[in-house]
Amino acid sequence: MTMLYVVIACGLLSVLYAVWATQSVLAADQGSERMREIAGAIREGAQAYLTRQYTTVAFVGAIVFVIAWWLLTAAAAVGFLVGAVLSAAAGFIGMHVSVRANVRTAQAASNSLAAGLDIAFKSGAITGLLVAGLALLGVSVYFAILTGPMGLDPTERTVIDALVALGFGASLISIFARLGGGIFTKGADVGGDLVGKVEAGIPEDDPRNPATIADNVGDNVGDCAGMAADLFETYVVTVVATMVLASIFFTGATAVTLMLFPLVIGGACVVTSIIGTFFVKLGSNNSIMGALYKGFVATALLSVVALALIVWLWLGGSSEFTASNGGTFTGLDLFYCGLVGLAVTGLIIWITEYYTGVGFRPVRSISQASVSGHGTNVIQGLAISLEATALPAIVIIAGIIVSFNLAGLFGIAIAVTTMLALAGMVVALDAFGPVTDNAGGIAEMADLPAEVRQTTDALDAVGNTTKAVTKGYAIGSAGLGALVLFAAYTEDLRYFAANAAPGSFFEGVSVDFSLSNPYVVVGLLFGGLLPFLFGGLSMTAVGRAAGAIVAEVRRQFREKPGIMEGTEKPDYGRAVDLLTKAAIKEMIVPSLLPVLSPLAVFGLMYAIAGKNEAFASLGAMLLGVIVTGLFVAISMTAGGGAWDNAKKSFEDGFVDKDGTKHEKGSEAHKASVTGDTVGDPYKDTAGPAVNPMIKITNIMALLLLAVLAH
Amino acid sequence: MTMLYVVIACGLLSVLYAVWATQSVLAADQGSERMREIAGAIREGAQAYLTRQYTTVAFVGAIVFVIAWWLLTAAAAVGFLVGAVLSAAAGFIGMHVSVRANVRTAQAASNSLAAGLDIAFKSGAITGLLVAGLALLGVSVYFAILTGPMGLDPTERTVIDALVALGFGASLISIFARLGGGIFTKGADVGGDLVGKVEAGIPEDDPRNPATIADNVGDNVGDCAGMAADLFETYVVTVVATMVLASIFFTGATAVTLMLFPLVIGGACVVTSIIGTFFVKLGSNNSIMGALYKGFVATALLSVVALALIVWLWLGGSSEFTASNGGTFTGLDLFYCGLVGLAVTGLIIWITEYYTGVGFRPVRSISQASVSGHGTNVIQGLAISLEATALPAIVIIAGIIVSFNLAGLFGIAIAVTTMLALAGMVVALDAFGPVTDNAGGIAEMADLPAEVRQTTDALDAVGNTTKAVTKGYAIGSAGLGALVLFAAYTEDLRYFAANAAPGSFFEGVSVDFSLSNPYVVVGLLFGGLLPFLFGGLSMTAVGRAAGAIVAEVRRQFREKPGIMEGTEKPDYGRAVDLLTKAAIKEMIVPSLLPVLSPLAVFGLMYAIAGKNEAFASLGAMLLGVIVTGLFVAISMTAGGGAWDNAKKSFEDGFVDKDGTKHEKGSEAHKASVTGDTVGDPYKDTAGPAVNPMIKITNIMALLLLAVLAH
Repeated sequence: MTMLYVVIACGLLSVLYAVWATQSVLAADQGSERMREIAGAIREGAQAYLTRQYTTVAFVGAIVFVIAWWLLTAAAAVGFLVGAVLSAAAGFIGMHVSVRANVRTAQAASNSLAAGLDIAFKSGAITGLLVAGLALLGVSVYFAILTGPMGLDPTERTVIDALVALGFGASLISIFARLGGGIFTKGADVGGDLVGKVEAGIPEDDPRNPATIADNVGDNVGDCAGMAADLFETYVVTVVATMVLASIFFTGATAVTLMLFPLVIGGACVVTSIIGTFFVKLGSNNSIMGALYKGFVATALLSVVALALIVWLWLGGSSEFTASNGGTFTGLDLFYCGLVGLAVTGLIIWITEYYTGVGFRPVRSISQASVSGHGTNVIQGLAISLEATALPAIVIIAGIIVSFNLAGLFGIAIAVTTMLALAGMVVALDAFGPVTDNAGGIAEMADLPAEVRQTTDALDAVGNTTKAVTKGYAIGSAGLGALVLFAAYTEDLRYFAANAAPGSFFEGVSVDFSLSNPYVVVGLLFGGLLPFLFGGLSMTAVGRAAGAIVAEVRRQFREKPGIMEGTEKPDYGRAVDLLTKAAIKEMIVPSLLPVLSPLAVFGLMYAIAGKNEAFASLGAMLLGVIVTGLFVAISMTAGGGAWDNAKKSFEDGFVDKDGTKHEKGSEAHKASVTGDTVGDPYKDTAGPAVNPMIKITNIMALLLLAVLAH
Repeated sequence: MTMLYVVIACGLLSVLYAVWATQSVLAADQGSERMREIAGAIREGAQAYLTRQYTTVAFVGAIVFVIAWWLLTAAAAVGFLVGAVLSAAAGFIGMHVSVRANVRTAQAASNSLAAGLDIAFKSGAITGLLVAGLALLGVSVYFAILTGPMGLDPTERTVIDALVALGFGASLISIFARLGGGIFTKGADVGGDLVGKVEAGIPEDDPRNPATIADNVGDNVGDCAGMAADLFETYVVTVVATMVLASIFFTGATAVTLMLFPLVIGGACVVTSIIGTFFVKLGSNNSIMGALYKGFVATALLSVVALALIVWLWLGGSSEFTASNGGTFTGLDLFYCGLVGLAVTGLIIWITEYYTGVGFRPVRSISQASVSGHGTNVIQGLAISLEATALPAIVIIAGIIVSFNLAGLFGIAIAVTTMLALAGMVVALDAFGPVTDNAGGIAEMADLPAEVRQTTDALDAVGNTTKAVTKGYAIGSAGLGALVLFAAYTEDLRYFAANAAPGSFFEGVSVDFSLSNPYVVVGLLFGGLLPFLFGGLSMTAVGRAAGAIVAEVRRQFREKPGIMEGTEKPDYGRAVDLLTKAAIKEMIVPSLLPVLSPLAVFGLMYAIAGKNEAFASLGAMLLGVIVTGLFVAISMTAGGGAWDNAKKSFEDGFVDKDGTKHEKGSEAHKASVTGDTVGDPYKDTAGPAVNPMIKITNIMALLLLAVLAH
């Protein structure tokens, strides 16, 4: 168990990095009085929103805490609390830094691109490493406490249940944060654009638009805090599911070693991610994407080395492991599984860039379709969004086949764990986006010289791609991890059935998961409908929030005619306040859908057809939600990114296939704006929220088993 | 087997009805010289397109015919031919009548609404009853020949394979007809609207628009012939799959009786559908929908009576049947299963009307969202399209559970068979749509008085709803039939494995279809990606075809400036010709996707992991394609219908929630036109084509088994 302390040390290192980087960011120049004032308004709005969001979630959380204590164990209730609090903390601290880094990035950008990149990326890296570091610390420290001072055996059910509850805590925060933040940010964005850009004809981030501060607040609470909670949850759930599998497949010392293995990989990759951040430096070619890729590639290569060292020196490359379900594999096989995880990450990044990048066929086809009008722009965008699911799915399929053939189900688990071990670096690339987006807004509102805006725009454009990439990565890992979560469920079920006391709920339970069982098909269909219904509800929520903003901005323009002439100041606070209320209200119902559905399906099927069929339907539901969720999420995030960049392609003038150039403000550009508006809730609300939705459905099922066994 | 001759007689009755109704339609007045001229252009275009489409498909069909003869039996090859030819015939004859009924409906509408309805509905009923009647005749006559003159045993593999091949023939025609017709009709619609309504500012169906004849041609080849082929295929495949199950689950005389049972239900319901058509009469309230519902309800109620008579008098209400897989059920249970099928049909119609009808929340929310712009219209439309999947899925789930509990897998098969037995009536309701749509176009182009156009518009609006309903019905039956098709696959597989000769391919085959098998998950994901990729490809195809039309119409306007002033005649033929070429070219690749994917997945998995895993992946793929396909298809067809009717709500002036009235031509109306444009390929190309796609994937898998066993 010494390795556990090494893992904890790695986790602490990430916190130290965050402290150091925060100080370094805060030491930078905050710019003019006007800039500070604007940044202050954004900061206040973001903090007010997050406080309110977490207060609401805390209410739900408190109920769940009591239920967990009552139905399970104190250890599970505390685990739930740890997961929830750390997830909230990662988001909160990340947002805390990002609302301070934005104005400093704007100021630094007036000196040089390199200086702007440095602050923005550092701010992103703080969020990224806190996500990975706190997730790792949460699991490893709690595991150390349970198995150390509390004297529990690592493979004991109490420990496993506590870890699953920790994952559930993270998931619950995540679904609320992703959805609430997503509704806030896109409500502001869509509503503000509609009434500002389209009706009043003023540019984005114009200080006369009463929704402009809300839009910038949204970047922080949605793209930064929301995404942090999402990846935190993905990380924790995957590591926990891998540990659950290890505890069931293996016994004795091997079980403990393999339970620690995902944590050790996580620890090593936190360190390689920290080293990687120092590779992010603007080269002589001034390529921002190039600078970011340097950091990512350095982290990936160092992680390969670290993985090799872990396997050879600690696990033993040639040592054999035999799982209780019959599979045998060596340390070397697990190393290859780790490589599969890294390869899947790389391929998904590559495919996402192809589908959302400006220079390639998909985005060009949307730009071209904009030339014939709004309708054809949307048709082509939808076509691309549907098409964009195929290659990632094939990569995930290949990942499943290869890692399964190497080391069975545990091999797949290790592939996903390794994939997610890079989360620190990937989130860093992503969380840099909202900072630069805000910096651009501040530059615009504070009337900084045009060159500054150009610099921040350049940073922002890269941020769009990295944001799409992270979403592909998150949902890809969920797809690959599907089998791991499902395996955790079936193995748990088998375990409970095998160890059932006479008269207990699991006595005589024997579940047929074959596709020939109609209850399995019913479960697949039930699960399959969740991402669609959830997507529908969250799109409607954004529409409603945006509608509220449109009404508010129109009211302000009407009641304060001086706003447009620049003689009156708009009431930014009211827009922020209104959206806060709307987002909190709108997030509740869709968030509860994945929490309550597993219980409803189990209860219903239990009443209709008994235990075995209820377990079969519930299990199939877990796969059903992934089978459709994977495609829904990829199509939404990739499609939204493509629409966004198709719009951007008009900003520098798009030359269509007949050689005509369409400038900003042309009819084709307007059509592309429609596509971008549609893509906004697709890529930033509904699509990414499918990811925690999938996980929470799965974790609920595992918890249900634990409760029934208790 | 006497019953078989009764069934054949029922089939012949439908042909007689078609002959009588055709004569009655053709006897009606064709109107003025100008009207005949326009109708002549539409007729020529439609015939030219269909001839070309079927010539192309015949080429593919000839290859398949030779392969089927070579790899299977002569009986299978002939079966394939029968299915293909009859499917083509149903579409061709239906279209033949509909391009003649359009002008007569326009003329009749100038007398009265009732007269217009009478001709339009009769024309639809011809297509509907030919679809059901020819499908029934195809299966029953070929079955009679195989088991009579050719002396084969009804449960012999040669017979089963020949029936499956017959289904494949129908499926192959169907996918091409649905997709080719869909690309044609929506390419014309989208392209024509973009350049006519939006750019030139002329109304729909204005004779100055060079694409207007093509648009009317499209209604006939897409909505009439394409849809006829689709339902023909759904009918045949479901009946055949039910017969396959009966032949495997039962032995001796019981097997033959239960193999005949779906045919007998079909025969009875053809008769009830014919009777039902006579109930379609405009009441004193002038409600068109009411008139149509009268016909549908009469058919449904008569079918319940007929089903009861069949079960009690022929099958024996209390006689027990024991399936080889262990289930036991009575004739009464099968009667209840039939009722389940009818209930599912009714509920799906009801839900579809809610989601696409003008008076309800979904469509109103899209109209309201149009007030804030193009973007919000599309967002809300997508939200509704996603949401609209939930209730139909739940109805299907309930249908599966109830009928399975009544009579096992065979019960589900009987529920779907009964559902599809109403196809004659449902298709009649649907095929009436393109006739009235055309009639409106002819009235507009021939400058008939405004009242005539109002009458045809009223008929057309109802046609929109019935079209959405039929699509929901088709895809709903596919969802409910999923298990039947999958069961046919697994039972076939089990049969071949059990009867494998030493050294043959199936020797020792034992497939694990459990969800814990990663190859099953891989298959689910593979299957799941097909509807998405297929949807993406077909949306792109429509976009491209529309783009070609836009370019052509712009060229004609430019080169013949007299067109807009009415002094020059546009070249309608060129637009039709261009679209014909485009649609034929674009339909090939997407159509081959579901044909070749099962072979590719099986081959790949066989190479990687061997026979058993290859069969597991292929089987799971069949369910995967249904799990995502069901949702993709429902969301597309319902969403498209809702967008269409949201646009229509502006034509009479839409009063938004603040009490402002938005008229035709307002900004809100323009935004709703964008949504309608997006919905066009959604609801008429990509969405409905998913249905034959699902079936063809399944039938290919069954054929593959037959080939491997041969």
